[in-house]
Amino acid sequence: MKKAAIIGVGHVGSTLAYTLISRNIIDELVLFDKKEGQLLSEYNDLFDGQVDRYNYVKLIEPNLEELADTDVLIFSAGDITIFEGNSDRFAELYLTKEIVEEWAPKIKASGFKGILINITNPCDVVTQRLQELTGIPRERIFGTGTTLDSARMKHAVSEQFNVHPSSVEGYVMGEHGESQFVAWSSVRIGGVPISEMLSPEELEKLETTARAGGWITMRGKGYTSYGIANQAALVIEAVLNNNHKVLPVSSYSEKDQCYVGHPAQVAADGIIKDYHFKMSELEYEKWEKTIETIKFMHSTAL
Amino acid sequence: MKKAAIIGVGHVGSTLAYTLISRNIIDELVLFDKKEGQLLSEYNDLFDGQVDRYNYVKLIEPNLEELADTDVLIFSAGDITIFEGNSDRFAELYLTKEIVEEWAPKIKASGFKGILINITNPCDVVTQRLQELTGIPRERIFGTGTTLDSARMKHAVSEQFNVHPSSVEGYVMGEHGESQFVAWSSVRIGGVPISEMLSPEELEKLETTARAGGWITMRGKGYTSYGIANQAALVIEAVLNNNHKVLPVSSYSEKDQCYVGHPAQVAADGIIKDYHFKMSELEYEKWEKTIETIKFMHSTAL
Amino acid sequence: MKKAAIIGVGHVGSTLAYTLISRNIIDELVLFDKKEGQLLSEYNDLFDGQVDRYNYVKLIEPNLEELADTDVLIFSAGDITIFEGNSDRFAELYLTKEIVEEWAPKIKASGFKGILINITNPCDVVTQRLQELTGIPRERIFGTGTTLDSARMKHAVSEQFNVHPSSVEGYVMGEHGESQFVAWSSVRIGGVPISEMLSPEELEKLETTARAGGWITMRGKGYTSYGIANQAALVIEAVLNNNHKVLPVSSYSEKDQCYVGHPAQVAADGIIKDYHFKMSELEYEKWEKTIETIKFMHSTAL
Amino acid sequence: MKKAAIIGVGHVGSTLAYTLISRNIIDELVLFDKKEGQLLSEYNDLFDGQVDRYNYVKLIEPNLEELADTDVLIFSAGDITIFEGNSDRFAELYLTKEIVEEWAPKIKASGFKGILINITNPCDVVTQRLQELTGIPRERIFGTGTTLDSARMKHAVSEQFNVHPSSVEGYVMGEHGESQFVAWSSVRIGGVPISEMLSPEELEKLETTARAGGWITMRGKGYTSYGIANQAALVIEAVLNNNHKVLPVSSYSEKDQCYVGHPAQVAADGIIKDYHFKMSELEYEKWEKTIETIKFMHSTAL
Repeated sequence: MKKAAIIGVGHVGSTLAYTLISRNIIDELVLFDKKEGQLLSEYNDLFDGQVDRYNYVKLIEPNLEELADTDVLIFSAGDITIFEGNSDRFAELYLTKEIVEEWAPKIKASGFKGILINITNPCDVVTQRLQELTGIPRERIFGTGTTLDSARMKHAVSEQFNVHPSSVEGYVMGEHGESQFVAWSSVRIGGVPISEMLSPEELEKLETTARAGGWITMRGKGYTSYGIANQAALVIEAVLNNNHKVLPVSSYSEKDQCYVGHPAQVAADGIIKDYHFKMSELEYEKWEKTIETIKFMHSTAL
Repeated sequence: MKKAAIIGVGHVGSTLAYTLISRNIIDELVLFDKKEGQLLSEYNDLFDGQVDRYNYVKLIEPNLEELADTDVLIFSAGDITIFEGNSDRFAELYLTKEIVEEWAPKIKASGFKGILINITNPCDVVTQRLQELTGIPRERIFGTGTTLDSARMKHAVSEQFNVHPSSVEGYVMGEHGESQFVAWSSVRIGGVPISEMLSPEELEKLETTARAGGWITMRGKGYTSYGIANQAALVIEAVLNNNHKVLPVSSYSEKDQCYVGHPAQVAADGIIKDYHFKMSELEYEKWEKTIETIKFMHSTAL
Repeated sequence: MKKAAIIGVGHVGSTLAYTLISRNIIDELVLFDKKEGQLLSEYNDLFDGQVDRYNYVKLIEPNLEELADTDVLIFSAGDITIFEGNSDRFAELYLTKEIVEEWAPKIKASGFKGILINITNPCDVVTQRLQELTGIPRERIFGTGTTLDSARMKHAVSEQFNVHPSSVEGYVMGEHGESQFVAWSSVRIGGVPISEMLSPEELEKLETTARAGGWITMRGKGYTSYGIANQAALVIEAVLNNNHKVLPVSSYSEKDQCYVGHPAQVAADGIIKDYHFKMSELEYEKWEKTIETIKFMHSTAL
Repeated sequence: MKKAAIIGVGHVGSTLAYTLISRNIIDELVLFDKKEGQLLSEYNDLFDGQVDRYNYVKLIEPNLEELADTDVLIFSAGDITIFEGNSDRFAELYLTKEIVEEWAPKIKASGFKGILINITNPCDVVTQRLQELTGIPRERIFGTGTTLDSARMKHAVSEQFNVHPSSVEGYVMGEHGESQFVAWSSVRIGGVPISEMLSPEELEKLETTARAGGWITMRGKGYTSYGIANQAALVIEAVLNNNHKVLPVSSYSEKDQCYVGHPAQVAADGIIKDYHFKMSELEYEKWEKTIETIKFMHSTAL
């Protein structure tokens, strides 16, 4: 039996639950949220949403004791879209801080021994803070990091070249926030580096487009859900299937002494290995800067 | 290429779009909605939500001309959840009426030759009205009918007997609204009629529970999405895969001279055949009553 | 992690392995077969067959110790198609007997604590013998029974009525062999009993067609694989997903004191409950006869 | 409706049919084979194999007129595994030549307007010959090329690094035969070139392992099926879903004036674009040699 739990069932948590159920990734699911009526509503709708399908996910009533044998715990509490649409990232960080400090001891006390995946923003520092407060081993906790940002980059490149987004290889690196950057040196289509097909100016323009994607979604409906739910589901599947996929999650970089989005191998025991490919000089500068930003945010606000 | 279009991209239309994309049911999708910013947002998020998956659904800009070669058009405009949470069903019917009268001529003028599936409530009469106003042949237009109600019945029975909902056979019949009823005479598990396992009182209680399901979802989050999106997706798949599944959609009953939820065979050319199984006397009475209700609503309000 | 093992990797075992991998039903797989070269070949081809897909099933080298933490063990050793194409069912039963007696002690000694699903023919008596020799609790071991026969009946009905096979409800009952019978009293489409749509003569003809299906497949390629692999996969999924589906597996009937194909609820702990629906008088006679056949075969040959 | 046809239903054709049905890639399927009894057997077993699943693929009787509206035609006639286990590639080429010359005029006469995908070996020259004899535009016909070889390379690398095969990026280039080579310069994990992780000697050893994969499968069961069926299914899906994936199919290289395995963008209209990434000098030499081999085989034998 594959058991997942989600803390925080807003738009993202709810869409993620539906995605996990639809794709047969889990067998049992526990949902936690402060809004009891809404939670009951989601339980009910999610059950209705799986009738007449093959699999059947057992929806278990929220109870912290359930965490003791939960395989994957997803943390999506708080307004997890804060950083999508807010240029002043410190503004609401204090709210998130409280939520993290409220939940961490509960998770710790529950006897949870699984893998913790954080989606709540600011993703990198919240992940780090959750690690510190729960004492979960560093390799067993990580964030969705730049998986969504990498997806948006692939989306933008795919539209420019009229190619399937999965045929675009490469990574967005760093903070899941403003200091992130596309590592264009890693981006290829059919083995051909994108830098051979576009000028630096065109690449810059494309990066702007990719980054604007999140904002367009945010402005229109007030939140983003499908993009992040899809990426989180792929990460969760990597753990529950022990599939050793390399994904740009926010994992702990020994070298940089913080959690930060970069490719890492995800398996049943969490992060097995992380990858640091050679970047261009300009990209290294951006990397240093994004590390600095994450560390500053961590030291200042949390 | 399998091309679908959705008119009305609120919670249901949006969740349905995500479901169709996730389950590889379609290849091309056009979305129509008056709220332009929200529409752009959904387009963007839906694209992000399919990165790193196998299939790739082409998201096409809204243009009525696109309907000319659309295979399945889903009508989910208006507040399609009206009848879930409103005991006075005539209250907002006038709003729906206007929306239908606005869209029907546009659909007609577009050269649409596909199958039209209506979700907008009151489902049965809106379907009938759409048929009348568009002139689409009766077998090529139908509503989601009591598919969701049947799912909720299976949900309730499944919880009572701790059995997979798909292993509960049977139908909720009639109006997708208050006058609907569970045809308990059709409900079986493992070939055993449920009436041999439960008393009439217990069945009545179970029907109440099943029906309450929709309300619980409505009250909690203000809308229902996963249950209806799942059923609509199964119906759409039946058309696009030409799979001849028997589903309790709202199809035209020659015998009763109106659209009403009852089992019918769904295929690429729409409704191939409908089924009228023998009900108990009590159920026949309820059937007559629900037909009356649908006809009265149709003649009065539309 | 969901771990399955297959004993006997001929056409059926191999196709089943491919099906389990393709449908993301398992995470780990161990294969056992005496033909070492062929086994290595299958391991290799099965691995190649999953590249570029999401999931990744870990293929584990054959070692009896692996059974200790295996969730589902499939027994498909021997010529499991014996009874498809051989009217004298006792002819090769002795060969099967030896294979069962060879494997049972190994399974017992391995510390296997999971669910054992038997496909090897004659399915019902081999299942019973495996139960007796391994001492596995009766509810934790069962056979694929009349799942394939029910599928063939649905295939035949579906062609006659041009309807989706899944929209045909009902069961083939009894021995997975010559004494089986279609319980036409259980067969419905859209809630309508098939006996209202066809005469007894037409039903008899249809039963002959359904039954001939297996022979046509056997004669043409010398074995059957997709039909049985599909049904076995659905049964295995019911266990690994704990989904409580009702399936006509060969489970132990307390009433009849033997393993026999009839609807039963399948879950993580095996058979949770079996169903005995009311049959027609004629069907009851056939039931008595099939039970007798199974018991005679068991007492005589094993 | 998505309609596919397969010419040649041996182990590969049959496994491919099962794969296309299982993964919901098609809606209609026509099978052609000279062995009538076996063909009937496959039709029957494939139908049985889809009962109780969602989708339902219509299996259509073999009739050349059916090709007129077929979307994708797969050519897998002849002993398509010739080149897997035979070091003298000319030995049986003459047999294949006859089969191609027999089928090409039939395809031409049928009014087929879809995409033709060739699996029959020697893949590259048979594809080219089929193009010449049918007159199908070059971009609308191609072979599975080095998709399987690339999969085997990913398999070998994945085992060495204990990483998901899909997380290994890169290509095997050239002939689907002995002169093929791994373009190690294109192979990366997590953005890191494999050449930074392994020495040239280790890479050579790994290439030998990758290539041996096919032989191990061949020797053990006399054919290979899952690996090639999986890759062919991904290619067919790229066409039927119009998904613009970049895959190392055998497409026509204008530069080299022959069909040869290298990355190309596959869509509903066939090959939209091919990619020629910069290789190392050694790889260029191998490329020249493989082109030469393909051309020599084409000019000599066909």
